[in-house]
Amino acid sequence: MRLVKVRRTERSHDLVDLTLDVRLEGEFEPVYVDGDNSLCLATDTMKNTVYAFARHDPIDYVEAFSERLSAHFAAQPAVTSVRIAATEHRWARLDVNGRPDPHAFVQNGAEQWTSLVVRDQSGVQVTAGLKDLVVLKTTDSGFSGFPRDRFTTLAEASDRILATSVSSTWRYRPGTIDYSARDRVRTALVETFAAHKSLSVQHTLYAMGEAALAASPEILDITMSLPNRHHLLVDLKPFGLDNPNEIFVATDQPYGLIEATVGRDGSSKS
Amino acid sequence: MRLVKVRRTERSHDLVDLTLDVRLEGEFEPVYVDGDNSLCLATDTMKNTVYAFARHDPIDYVEAFSERLSAHFAAQPAVTSVRIAATEHRWARLDVNGRPDPHAFVQNGAEQWTSLVVRDQSGVQVTAGLKDLVVLKTTDSGFSGFPRDRFTTLAEASDRILATSVSSTWRYRPGTIDYSARDRVRTALVETFAAHKSLSVQHTLYAMGEAALAASPEILDITMSLPNRHHLLVDLKPFGLDNPNEIFVATDQPYGLIEATVGRDGSSKS
Amino acid sequence: MRLVKVRRTERSHDLVDLTLDVRLEGEFEPVYVDGDNSLCLATDTMKNTVYAFARHDPIDYVEAFSERLSAHFAAQPAVTSVRIAATEHRWARLDVNGRPDPHAFVQNGAEQWTSLVVRDQSGVQVTAGLKDLVVLKTTDSGFSGFPRDRFTTLAEASDRILATSVSSTWRYRPGTIDYSARDRVRTALVETFAAHKSLSVQHTLYAMGEAALAASPEILDITMSLPNRHHLLVDLKPFGLDNPNEIFVATDQPYGLIEATVGRDGSSKS
Amino acid sequence: MRLVKVRRTERSHDLVDLTLDVRLEGEFEPVYVDGDNSLCLATDTMKNTVYAFARHDPIDYVEAFSERLSAHFAAQPAVTSVRIAATEHRWARLDVNGRPDPHAFVQNGAEQWTSLVVRDQSGVQVTAGLKDLVVLKTTDSGFSGFPRDRFTTLAEASDRILATSVSSTWRYRPGTIDYSARDRVRTALVETFAAHKSLSVQHTLYAMGEAALAASPEILDITMSLPNRHHLLVDLKPFGLDNPNEIFVATDQPYGLIEATVGRDGSSKS
Repeated sequence: MRLVKVRRTERSHDLVDLTLDVRLEGEFEPVYVDGDNSLCLATDTMKNTVYAFARHDPIDYVEAFSERLSAHFAAQPAVTSVRIAATEHRWARLDVNGRPDPHAFVQNGAEQWTSLVVRDQSGVQVTAGLKDLVVLKTTDSGFSGFPRDRFTTLAEASDRILATSVSSTWRYRPGTIDYSARDRVRTALVETFAAHKSLSVQHTLYAMGEAALAASPEILDITMSLPNRHHLLVDLKPFGLDNPNEIFVATDQPYGLIEATVGRDGSSKS
Repeated sequence: MRLVKVRRTERSHDLVDLTLDVRLEGEFEPVYVDGDNSLCLATDTMKNTVYAFARHDPIDYVEAFSERLSAHFAAQPAVTSVRIAATEHRWARLDVNGRPDPHAFVQNGAEQWTSLVVRDQSGVQVTAGLKDLVVLKTTDSGFSGFPRDRFTTLAEASDRILATSVSSTWRYRPGTIDYSARDRVRTALVETFAAHKSLSVQHTLYAMGEAALAASPEILDITMSLPNRHHLLVDLKPFGLDNPNEIFVATDQPYGLIEATVGRDGSSKS
Repeated sequence: MRLVKVRRTERSHDLVDLTLDVRLEGEFEPVYVDGDNSLCLATDTMKNTVYAFARHDPIDYVEAFSERLSAHFAAQPAVTSVRIAATEHRWARLDVNGRPDPHAFVQNGAEQWTSLVVRDQSGVQVTAGLKDLVVLKTTDSGFSGFPRDRFTTLAEASDRILATSVSSTWRYRPGTIDYSARDRVRTALVETFAAHKSLSVQHTLYAMGEAALAASPEILDITMSLPNRHHLLVDLKPFGLDNPNEIFVATDQPYGLIEATVGRDGSSKS
Repeated sequence: MRLVKVRRTERSHDLVDLTLDVRLEGEFEPVYVDGDNSLCLATDTMKNTVYAFARHDPIDYVEAFSERLSAHFAAQPAVTSVRIAATEHRWARLDVNGRPDPHAFVQNGAEQWTSLVVRDQSGVQVTAGLKDLVVLKTTDSGFSGFPRDRFTTLAEASDRILATSVSSTWRYRPGTIDYSARDRVRTALVETFAAHKSLSVQHTLYAMGEAALAASPEILDITMSLPNRHHLLVDLKPFGLDNPNEIFVATDQPYGLIEATVGRDGSSKS
């Protein structure tokens, strides 16, 4: 469901724009097996509940709003687990005459912020994330030394374009959470991407994860998913031209998807 | 990656149209931590391997082709687990003068067939499925008797439109598998959807799962995901008109997503 | 706007599923220049009008329903021209035990039917069409003899896969129109695609257009848009394998888009 | 086709990321009617030509690059008209430690820049534009005084959210064009959207167009397409809550699409 909240003050307005997804698990056998709906909370009721809760909640952090919602739903009959996933569509203030306007906004980038709150008998787990953060670097990226078997035709590359759409989620330690950690994690991811001397997407992914863990002691581990958005050098030799790393074609398919979770003990898996 | 295979015989051609996704997990720490690529199979090599294997494989069933591919990749150094997910884009023969053409095809429906083969030290698990099968029934569907709290505004419905996009996956028992079970599973799902006196989406989902299990002893369990594509009755009273279940607006958001796995012991979860 | 109508009879139900787009042009300067809304029909009112008209209209043909709607809107103050574009999302009956079910439907194919009714002082022009009809043939298609300049690297092809997503619109002669002409046009397009010995996409497009004109004297001309969905032969020689027109990769970009209008006097333009 | 060009200097790199669409019209009857391809420039050749031209072109402005390309294609046999449409995918520099990185980029916003160059015997017409610029204001927007007929149920609104995705194109006067006019046009559009006391979307559209014309004497006229992305106030009264313009649901369908061209003589049409 979609929820937009305007926080109105005398001087300016703030905007929160969310897509929320509430899932309940529980002992619902009679609903499925017998068609007995006495335990089946209507999705329409769930929607109404979210709107009503949003009225007096500041929604300073979506994670905290989701936590409060999850407590309400966890108290319903037969429910054993509540998952609230949220995507925050981000708006920036419009600049007018060089100054941010108090009431006008622009959707600034495909990047979205995500959160997931899972509440069950064992407690609450909060995970934050971002997705669709598209970045590219034009140097400091290579890929060589990989195994060559009879199916290998790829040439080694010492200087290639590295482009990806970063999706990442990180789990917070249970307890009182400082949700502004998001800014530190994001800065660590992005600045490491830019600065790293990349020997592979995997190599850069690991460095990004390490930097995020170092910047944010409150996170347990971080998972990243980095699709390799290939930029292939165009062969201009048939036309009597060289191509000194200048003209590329960006391709959608096929692509490599590099995924790993980096944890405190240094473990990683592809 | 995308793969199209044409099987050519004197009398006619067959067409297999796939999107394949090969994922390797393994002991790849040196790749991530040190940038040592000596264990890092290039995605380009993986792509070439699939094309080369496709040349002499009949690909009668995508599941069997994926199994053979998974054995090749599982034998690579450091690999501990191989996952091959496939989506089959289905083509039907074009009718010309009332007869199927031997060489011309039409993409008949959004419905796609999926499979997932996972191979690790414990063996091979094959899962088949379908997705984007959009169905609708105009009667024999209601929703009433659900709990009413202070956030409930939904009216009870004794006769509503039920529409959904069926996604389903089913796991096969290990061993020699008769992949034509797919046809029996699909028929059971679709015919139960049409015939069931539905008291809720959950109720119909369970009946569909039970029918699939009954029709196919070779499957262990079946998972279904049924988004409720709401068709809301339009209120025509302001214009002096009745609306005896005739005029509806189809809405995208918000919607309820009903998911469950039905197994042999009758267990279900929402 | 989305509109679903169920036609209910004792024996069975019929389903019409539309997306409608109503556009008015007119002498609306005061609305734009002065913010005077006294001539500005609210889009919400336009939506309500369509739903109210749908209640007692059989909607046997979307074209005829659009014509009736267009007469209503053309009579509003300041309106000089009305355009009603419709897309019909097609449903087929579900087969149960080999027989079509009276109340259950499946969305059978990406193909959609379109129509456009334009009404102004000069009269009414009705255009019908279809889109997203994806077809492919595995033989009887080549492309050779094209000009070779210093930028040409493409090899000549005597036997290639031809695949496209057909979009087509055809204009009806003014007057009483037999809208079942759609079936004849569609059959002519599809059967010609299958049977034609294609020397280029352009060549097949023209043959399809000629066949449609021959099959339907009530149409003035027909416009087709055929994107060339390239299927490239994979080079397997590096792996010691031949590829006798069997293994292809389907690519999205770049592609050629072939468009032309074929009229009664035989004129065509690219 | 997709084209990425990296301009490399000692100090930093620049990035141009384009989707280009080249269309030729001409006297191609033999291609269509007879399958004679001797006049049919292969799309593959067109693609190669663009890449070769890009090698030594600075592509400072896509409009100028398209003009040069159009001259080449207009000189091919049988060609009577060339249309080159381009979409520029914009990248911003990544900030690292508060400073823009010389080699790393982020895709900053859905907004894309478009251009269209049409060259035929009568000369060259250059049109520039932008699309997918999503903006929203939380105040200074109303809609009232519209006509009320028997189908009207919409309430008058004195203070509503106004949200839209701006698409706009503007035509340049023939001659030597200062393409940096784009910045002035964009600023005029955005700042007017923010500052305008809106009595309707149409009213704001016209003010935006007037501002753009005033800021850029080099443009002939400007066309805008503003879909009304409705934000509906949620009715919280059933839950005993007020809703002082705070909680909204953003809806996709149905929506109003407001389009007009504003020219130098003040003419507009809806």
